[in-house]
Amino acid sequence: MSRFLHPRFEKLVPYVPGEQPRGFDFIKLNTNELPYPPAPGVAAAAEREAERLQLYSDPESRELKEALAATYGVAPEQVFVSNGSDEILSFAFMAFCGEGRGAAFPDITYGFYKVYGALYGVDCDIRPLREDFTVDPADYYGGDRMVVIANPNAPTGLCLSLAEIADILRHNPDVPVLIDEAYVDFGGESALPLLREFDNLLVVRTFSKSRALAGGRLGFCIGNAALIRDLETIKFSTNPYNLDRMTQAAGVAALADPAYFEMTVGAVINTREDAAKRLEGLGARVLPSKANFLFVSLPGIPGAEVLAALRARGILVRHFSAPRISDFVRITVGTPEQMDKLCEAVADILDRR
Amino acid sequence: MSRFLHPRFEKLVPYVPGEQPRGFDFIKLNTNELPYPPAPGVAAAAEREAERLQLYSDPESRELKEALAATYGVAPEQVFVSNGSDEILSFAFMAFCGEGRGAAFPDITYGFYKVYGALYGVDCDIRPLREDFTVDPADYYGGDRMVVIANPNAPTGLCLSLAEIADILRHNPDVPVLIDEAYVDFGGESALPLLREFDNLLVVRTFSKSRALAGGRLGFCIGNAALIRDLETIKFSTNPYNLDRMTQAAGVAALADPAYFEMTVGAVINTREDAAKRLEGLGARVLPSKANFLFVSLPGIPGAEVLAALRARGILVRHFSAPRISDFVRITVGTPEQMDKLCEAVADILDRR
Repeated sequence: MSRFLHPRFEKLVPYVPGEQPRGFDFIKLNTNELPYPPAPGVAAAAEREAERLQLYSDPESRELKEALAATYGVAPEQVFVSNGSDEILSFAFMAFCGEGRGAAFPDITYGFYKVYGALYGVDCDIRPLREDFTVDPADYYGGDRMVVIANPNAPTGLCLSLAEIADILRHNPDVPVLIDEAYVDFGGESALPLLREFDNLLVVRTFSKSRALAGGRLGFCIGNAALIRDLETIKFSTNPYNLDRMTQAAGVAALADPAYFEMTVGAVINTREDAAKRLEGLGARVLPSKANFLFVSLPGIPGAEVLAALRARGILVRHFSAPRISDFVRITVGTPEQMDKLCEAVADILDRR
Repeated sequence: MSRFLHPRFEKLVPYVPGEQPRGFDFIKLNTNELPYPPAPGVAAAAEREAERLQLYSDPESRELKEALAATYGVAPEQVFVSNGSDEILSFAFMAFCGEGRGAAFPDITYGFYKVYGALYGVDCDIRPLREDFTVDPADYYGGDRMVVIANPNAPTGLCLSLAEIADILRHNPDVPVLIDEAYVDFGGESALPLLREFDNLLVVRTFSKSRALAGGRLGFCIGNAALIRDLETIKFSTNPYNLDRMTQAAGVAALADPAYFEMTVGAVINTREDAAKRLEGLGARVLPSKANFLFVSLPGIPGAEVLAALRARGILVRHFSAPRISDFVRITVGTPEQMDKLCEAVADILDRR
C-alpha cells in the first residue's frame, strides 16, 4: 500500500481470480467458463453496437431489463443489471451492511464474500458447513445480519432445497437474504418462486456461466422493487454507465435464444454426470455437483499436488488452500473431449503413485 | 429506500446523468460525446472479441496497460484501467478518504464528486470558485484532504495552468491530488509531466470524449506505482473483471490510430472556436472553453428556459440548477452542421424575446 491509502484498508487482501493464461494453449478448466460460445446471435448484436460507441450506453438498461423481466416472469422494476455479479455482490454488501449490520455466510463458499466484508468493514459471522459440506439452515436463524448463500454452493457444487431457502428467509424477515445463483442453471432449484412470499429475497445471477458471456461482463439480480431501487441508488452513486453498449446488446441476444441455452447447458450437465462417474471409477471422491464444475479429491494426493500434476499435463484446474478443502481441486466441466483428456490425465497421475 | 438499506445512505442523492433519449431523433449536445465515430480499427477489434465471449477477459488488462504506457511514456505499473473514469473517481474516494481524511474540490465542478463524498461518508470541503469561475490554487493549500480538480473544469471549460497545478501539488505533499483530465485533449495542459516530481499526483482520463468510446466504458488513471497499486487493491476487492474483452480491445485499437485521434479532436476544437464566435456575435456570454463543450448564457433568459426552448427545437443541451450557474447551459460541441442548427436555434430564441 502507498502512504496515502486509508488505514482501514491496511489489512485488506483482495480476491485472487483464477489464472487467465496468455500464450501456451492449456485446457482451461479453472474458471468455470462454458466450453461453448455464446448463442449465434450474440456476436452480431454486439457488433452492431461496436459501430456506434461514440454514444453513451443507456444507464438504465431499459431494453435489457425488459428482456430479463420477460424471461423470468417478473416486472422490469424487479431487475437490477450490473457489470458482472461480483459488482452486484459488492453493491449489496455496501448497501445493506455496515456499522450495526453484519453479514453471515458459510466458511466454505465463494471466496469473495469475505473480501467484501473486509472492504466495507462488515462484521462477518462465518458459519462452518456441516462435515459433509452441506449448509445447515439453522445456522442462519440470526435475523440481524444479511445472509449470503451460494446455491449451488461453490466450490462444492452442493445445493439447498427450495424449502431450506424458504426456511432461512422465514427466520430473517428484517434483513436481506441474498441467494447467489451463479450456477443454478446447471441443475439447482432457483429461489425465484419465493419472491412472491418474501420481500427480503435477492436472487443474484450471471451471464458468465450458463449464458457463455464470461468475457462480456454481465450480471443481474431479481428481488422486490424496493430492494432493487436500493441497488440502483448505489450504482448511480458510483458508476451509472457500468454496462457498455455491446454488453447490453449481447445480453439481450443471449436471452432471445432459449433453445441454444438449453442445448448447451444440457450438454454440460451430461458431460458432468459422465465425467463424475468416470472419475469415481478411477477412485476419486467426487461431490454430487449441480454446477458446471466438479469438486474432486484423489486418494492420498493433496489438492495442490493434483493441481500441479494436471498443469504439467497441460490442464488448468483450481485449488483452494482452506483447511477442510485442501485435498480437493475444482474442475470446470468442459467439452466431452476435454473431459476425456482430464480423465486420462487423472488415470495417469494415479498410475504413477 | 427499502427498510433494509443501511441508514448511512438515508440522505444519499445519486448522480443524475444527462438524458439518453430513445426514439425521437434529437440533436444530442447534452452529454459531451464526440460527434464522430471511434477510429476505423475499433469496431473490427471489438468484433474479434465478440466471437469469444465465453472466456473471461484479462482482469489485469495487460495489453491495454502496455498500449497506454507506450502512448503516454510511462511504465505499465503506473497505469490503472477501469470501467469509465467515474469508477476510478469512486475507487479513489473509497481508497484515500474516510474517517479523518476528507476531500476538497470546487463548488462548481463535476457534480459527481459530492456524490462520492456522500456515498463514502467523506467530509468534503467545497471551495467556491472565484467570481470569474476560475480556481484559486491557494484555496487548496490545506494539506490534509484529497484534492480533486477537474482540468479543464466542467461545466465551465476553464483551465488551470501547469504551474498552478504544481503549486497545489507542492502544498499537499501528504495527500493525493487527483486531476480529472476527462477533457484535456481538447486544448488543456496535462499534468502528466509533473509525475516525475510528485508522488501524490493521480491523473484521471477517459476514452469517452476524445477517443469516442463513451458507449464502450473505458477510463484510465496514471500516477506513481504505489498509488496505482492502491487502486488495484480496491478493484480486486470489488470487481476484478470490470473490463470486458470487447472494451479492452476497442481501447487498444483506439490508441493505435493517433492520426485519426488528432484529426477528430482538431475538428472539434475548430468547430468550438467557430461556434463560440458566432454565439458571442448573437449576444451570448460564452466562457473561454478548452473542452468539447461551451458554457453559454443568453442575455435575460434563465438557463432552464434556454434548455426548454432548445429542446422544443429538437436540440438537447444540459442545464445545472446550482445558484451561480443557473443562467448557463452546457452545449456539447457537435459537428459543424449540428452547430449551425444550434446557432440558428439560438438566434431564433433571441429573436422571439
